[in-house]
Amino acid sequence: MPTATVARLPGYLRVLHGLTADGVVTTSSEELAAGAGVTPAQLRKDLSFLGSYGRRGVGYDVLHLSEQISVVLGLTTQRRVVIVGIGNLGHALASYSVFAERGFAVVGLVDADPAVVGTTVGGLVVQPPAALHDVVSGSDATIGIIATPAAVAQDVCDELVAAGVVGILTFAPRALRVPPHVDLRAVDVASELQILAFHDRRRTGTGA
Amino acid sequence: MPTATVARLPGYLRVLHGLTADGVVTTSSEELAAGAGVTPAQLRKDLSFLGSYGRRGVGYDVLHLSEQISVVLGLTTQRRVVIVGIGNLGHALASYSVFAERGFAVVGLVDADPAVVGTTVGGLVVQPPAALHDVVSGSDATIGIIATPAAVAQDVCDELVAAGVVGILTFAPRALRVPPHVDLRAVDVASELQILAFHDRRRTGTGA
Repeated sequence: MPTATVARLPGYLRVLHGLTADGVVTTSSEELAAGAGVTPAQLRKDLSFLGSYGRRGVGYDVLHLSEQISVVLGLTTQRRVVIVGIGNLGHALASYSVFAERGFAVVGLVDADPAVVGTTVGGLVVQPPAALHDVVSGSDATIGIIATPAAVAQDVCDELVAAGVVGILTFAPRALRVPPHVDLRAVDVASELQILAFHDRRRTGTGA
Repeated sequence: MPTATVARLPGYLRVLHGLTADGVVTTSSEELAAGAGVTPAQLRKDLSFLGSYGRRGVGYDVLHLSEQISVVLGLTTQRRVVIVGIGNLGHALASYSVFAERGFAVVGLVDADPAVVGTTVGGLVVQPPAALHDVVSGSDATIGIIATPAAVAQDVCDELVAAGVVGILTFAPRALRVPPHVDLRAVDVASELQILAFHDRRRTGTGA
């Protein structure tokens, strides 16, 4: 399945969950595409990789399609997540209720600040860096979230990999290297603003 | 300039800033590409859109290239940002020091919770929803960040657009619609984890 298709599946699932909550039983590719912000043609092509084509004049069964996508994304098993870096952002992520709704359990928190270690955030006691390996392996976590300053992010990344995680989501504003068996997703909030600034400059003519 | 190239420029600038801080005067396409997590060929192609080719055997002038990218991205003028939704995530964003380092000033905060309105976060007093239009237009903000629950995100988005922002960064877990003159960037943290789960499932064989 193409990486770009995989990246769009969570969006479809989000719309389907919303439809289920509203009591909707069947949906059209037009409705689903509009909710997910893609074209109907893109949606149909993506879902064809799941072997799901909908029925002419009837559309897609909301519950069945939700289950199909959940199975493909591996969401029928709860995934365990460890967060490293419990500053403002890490604190917000540790308490983010949407994670639980989407099938993820935060099972460990690690921070290097002695003032933060030992405090309780979202029901978990923050552990020191020396405990990182045990926190990951002891909890069977497979995903690590890095919310540390950029300067230490690569070291934290290496330690998470050594401890056994196979997926890393980083918010640190720098590029990270991982071995081939580990997946890396990066969110750089300031870069997102810089991309918006590019269009703002072109439109308003300021700053050039 | 291709959208994908624009999206990679902040990463290059980040690496260049790091080199400047380390006292490095010239860099090679190999070094710059490695730091940004792209191939040297991709880097050279991207920079060719800026009219920047480097000099054979010498490489790129770090300061000059930084300035070129900053001008293209519109970072030579400070951009003003308003954040709507001062929960855990909005709170973290309001205090995020990297924004200031990258040329963005948070000039307004808005939240619907009466217990939050009136409190001071990152030096700014949180305003009520009724003040959103005045907060944006009074501060000349051009970018809005949405960190509200999904249910109200579209309404907030519409109000930001009506107040005059031309760029929106949303963290709300739902697709948003904006008019053609407004740019939208979306960060969905839970979806990033779901994409990692897809690869985890395929590797470990769990959850299918």
